[in-house]
Amino acid sequence: MPRYKLTVEYAGTRYSGWQIQKNARTVQGELERALGAVSGGRVDTYGSGRTDAGVHALAQVVHADLARALPPDTLITRANDELPHDINILAAERVSPRFHARHSAIARSYLYQISTRRTAFVKPFVWWVRDALDLDAMRAAAAPLVGLGDFRSFTDDDPEEKSTRVLIERIEIESQGALILVRVAGSHFLWKMVRRLVGVLVAVGRGDLEPADVAAWLTRESGVPAQLTAPASGLFLEHVAYESSDSARPLAPAALTIW
Amino acid sequence: MPRYKLTVEYAGTRYSGWQIQKNARTVQGELERALGAVSGGRVDTYGSGRTDAGVHALAQVVHADLARALPPDTLITRANDELPHDINILAAERVSPRFHARHSAIARSYLYQISTRRTAFVKPFVWWVRDALDLDAMRAAAAPLVGLGDFRSFTDDDPEEKSTRVLIERIEIESQGALILVRVAGSHFLWKMVRRLVGVLVAVGRGDLEPADVAAWLTRESGVPAQLTAPASGLFLEHVAYESSDSARPLAPAALTIW
Repeated sequence: MPRYKLTVEYAGTRYSGWQIQKNARTVQGELERALGAVSGGRVDTYGSGRTDAGVHALAQVVHADLARALPPDTLITRANDELPHDINILAAERVSPRFHARHSAIARSYLYQISTRRTAFVKPFVWWVRDALDLDAMRAAAAPLVGLGDFRSFTDDDPEEKSTRVLIERIEIESQGALILVRVAGSHFLWKMVRRLVGVLVAVGRGDLEPADVAAWLTRESGVPAQLTAPASGLFLEHVAYESSDSARPLAPAALTIW
Repeated sequence: MPRYKLTVEYAGTRYSGWQIQKNARTVQGELERALGAVSGGRVDTYGSGRTDAGVHALAQVVHADLARALPPDTLITRANDELPHDINILAAERVSPRFHARHSAIARSYLYQISTRRTAFVKPFVWWVRDALDLDAMRAAAAPLVGLGDFRSFTDDDPEEKSTRVLIERIEIESQGALILVRVAGSHFLWKMVRRLVGVLVAVGRGDLEPADVAAWLTRESGVPAQLTAPASGLFLEHVAYESSDSARPLAPAALTIW
């Protein structure tokens, strides 16, 4: 069966997350239904990773084996016609049966949007934070998190994860008008990890925590990050990197550089 | 009782339009509830005009008499705390009791957003049009509509309107990436008029109608525009102009110039 790599964007607001579930509307469920309608027969999809309820994706990567080969543009058009308006296939390509959306991925990046201004149009896509945030303090707190660290304090127990050690390549914090954008790139991410990182950084930005508190939680387990979990609405899976497919990007020397 | 002029933005997606109704969620209903909670007692609001279900506003103008005077910034903050996330008061000012949001308005402008690209995030705020549109043909069809005309073919019967004659000041059509933006400014607008104008212009852009067909409907009544009504999702009330309040804007010689 021909294998396809799909790049998919979605607004997670109306879904109980990526992963297919009985009796719940999920992104994977909608995608498998649409691909089945287009290619005939049942289709199983494999995502680069799960996203929780309310979390969005600018470029989730998925692979699927279809019952019949279709030109990628035809597949995109027909599947999008079957999909709800808030799930959209951006790209499709035939790939080797050795390609695996999750196992072949070498890095992921997430974007988190914080809005310091109330507006009528963006709530499903931001975390509204009323207080002024000290971005320099947030950057100071983020710096020691870069590198290989044990992020046990920043995740919940997840039976699918064997280790809580994660290689963080970069954390960038910038303001753009009333938005504060936090981008985190790394080898992979644990369950709820990005939202807890952001929650902790915002607490630092407010002055409720010191940058040094944050670094300490890499060596001493703490329940504080769990209490500060940022809302799902601001989080976007932004990019998944694969060794072979990113040759067109101007790669920095480090293999993990994905922006 | 002190009178306030409020400028309000809202996403109309979840509402049965502006105008208050029993047993339906409306923007005016939410606003009156919030203002009542903040100022004490029942509050009646008057908008510059109604917007239909699903139609948005970037700057609806509303007046209301409150039971007690509040500093405008306090009023904004407290009322926004009471309002749902998709309704937002942008500005508030004390005005003379002679100010009336509808009767004092001298011009309105609407923005209509057409998207030629499917994306997962914008459906509630655009009309997706798959076909390539000929913008020059659309502009040619729009030109004869500017000026004072009888827009009977472009509206439904509305007991509140005495005349179907409207002064259109400007129709602008521009593309911005995958978006086509249609802006219409005029003295006032009849029920469904902007959506029917846009529907007709898109039919011209597709090549289904000739520009000359459109102009003819100002003198010969036609049922065609009603069949081409553009969806509510793309429409935004963008600006309402008042003689006194716009002195800060760089006004062009014509009093109706509102951009």
